[in-house]
Amino acid sequence: MPYPHVQISDVILRDGLQLVRSVLPTEDKKRIVDALYGAGLRHLDITSFVPPARFPQFADASEIVAHARRYTDLDLSAFAPNPKGAERAAAAGVNAISFVVSVSESHNRANVNRTTDEQIAAAREVRAFLNGRDGEPVRLVLALATVFGCSIEGEIAVDAVARLAVEARAAGADEICLSDTVGYADPVRVRQVISAVRAAVGTDIPLRLHLHDTTGTGMACAFAAMEEGITLFDASLGGLGGCPFAAGASGNISTEDLVYLMERSGISTGIDLEALLAVTALLHAGLPAEPLASHLFKSGLPKSYGAHR
Amino acid sequence: MPYPHVQISDVILRDGLQLVRSVLPTEDKKRIVDALYGAGLRHLDITSFVPPARFPQFADASEIVAHARRYTDLDLSAFAPNPKGAERAAAAGVNAISFVVSVSESHNRANVNRTTDEQIAAAREVRAFLNGRDGEPVRLVLALATVFGCSIEGEIAVDAVARLAVEARAAGADEICLSDTVGYADPVRVRQVISAVRAAVGTDIPLRLHLHDTTGTGMACAFAAMEEGITLFDASLGGLGGCPFAAGASGNISTEDLVYLMERSGISTGIDLEALLAVTALLHAGLPAEPLASHLFKSGLPKSYGAHR
Repeated sequence: MPYPHVQISDVILRDGLQLVRSVLPTEDKKRIVDALYGAGLRHLDITSFVPPARFPQFADASEIVAHARRYTDLDLSAFAPNPKGAERAAAAGVNAISFVVSVSESHNRANVNRTTDEQIAAAREVRAFLNGRDGEPVRLVLALATVFGCSIEGEIAVDAVARLAVEARAAGADEICLSDTVGYADPVRVRQVISAVRAAVGTDIPLRLHLHDTTGTGMACAFAAMEEGITLFDASLGGLGGCPFAAGASGNISTEDLVYLMERSGISTGIDLEALLAVTALLHAGLPAEPLASHLFKSGLPKSYGAHR
Repeated sequence: MPYPHVQISDVILRDGLQLVRSVLPTEDKKRIVDALYGAGLRHLDITSFVPPARFPQFADASEIVAHARRYTDLDLSAFAPNPKGAERAAAAGVNAISFVVSVSESHNRANVNRTTDEQIAAAREVRAFLNGRDGEPVRLVLALATVFGCSIEGEIAVDAVARLAVEARAAGADEICLSDTVGYADPVRVRQVISAVRAAVGTDIPLRLHLHDTTGTGMACAFAAMEEGITLFDASLGGLGGCPFAAGASGNISTEDLVYLMERSGISTGIDLEALLAVTALLHAGLPAEPLASHLFKSGLPKSYGAHR
């Protein structure tokens, strides 16, 4: 195996909750943070700094970040849609801001009512804010949405992804996240896109992959990406999450299943799967009405897990 | 891509139904055969020639085979546990008998109350019967169960799989099927096993892969196997199926999802996915209480499907 370890960032408390109607109580979120840390997670996309009046799920954003900050080796990113959100996030103590630009012009309009160019300009404003503030540096992660297809436009060209990645880098991204927002990816296209983006932006900027399991290809794509050299993956506890413009879509790839796939294949994640499944049980207790998509949570650990290699 | 096409055998009417308690009406089964053929399937594992009194789901085995025989280019296999079942299957008109031997001694005992050696001896009896009968030749597919792990014994050694494959060939198998009976496989182990079995039995006997999606690794394993040179895959409409000794197990990998994964990756299956999803709807109408595990059936076809490559 060329890449003996990968680093999984759990997105349950951000992307995972964004379509969940019932607000998960703040105390439950804190318990999930503690338990994810206990299971070995060292990277969380932890909340969204969006207007609390419109998004009650994320009204406790600053409190959750403040709670998680007790773990000094826990890297925290949070979504922010504009400099104001980035300011709140930085003040709360995140290590990174994630900001989204869609490759699909139509998706970008549907998502934030702006052109892709306008959204890149907004990313520059966030960058300028981050550069101008005092205190610990905060990274800027530019997440490219609809990289593998769009539920509005359909096909997305590999070249268009590579071009936007170059613009994202020029706008000051410290990291680029390739997001399969609607879950259309396949392993061959994943390899093509990674290879095209690397050729376009160079190898000295980290690339992350954010997959959804809408069409069941999530694990095959993750494995292919790992073989292509990707070491940074997003995944969501219980497979929760989704995009409001992806009809019928199931959620993000499940953290539990991704850990299993990698560990079982001999790729270290640093995550204790048994402890992680206990966190899923906590999540399930907090959101009993949400169907969870994790295979491992349903099947339990295989008898031979851990004795395999 | 080294292998531009794969051949998928749908197992819904055999493995897919074996744990389903409500008997699917014979007319529904016939409609599913017709519709699967119409969608482009040319290989079906179509029924089980097991004692009808104990297995009412398969009491119509001969009638289903007779119905499917109208399609002269449809290759039919059926499960038979012994020479008597093989005799009924051959008389009904199948092209191949599938017979199961577990690598795990404990699983073989739990499944058929015999040692693995006794089961290989039984396979020889089936082979002798097939050799002795008149009429069109009927192939013998020896399916090795628990190849990637066992819910009773846990770990299964790659060497043990290769040794049993050699015995299966010596017993007269025309084809060897590697079955992940309880869904523990990972892509790396899949490649190791395929490579070890090929080295042991040679390249002039077809190898088939039968995967379950218990732990969510099914598609990643299928893709890895395709890259390793496997072109014959089992899959089940709606992802139905399972093993009575695999607690909490979800079913076989879904035919719909496998077709999508392959076609979307540029690997031809000869199957019309839109027509196939209509067959899933037929199945769902016939078994409304059974939860189906096909992602594609839930999400529908992506907007850009077909325009992708």
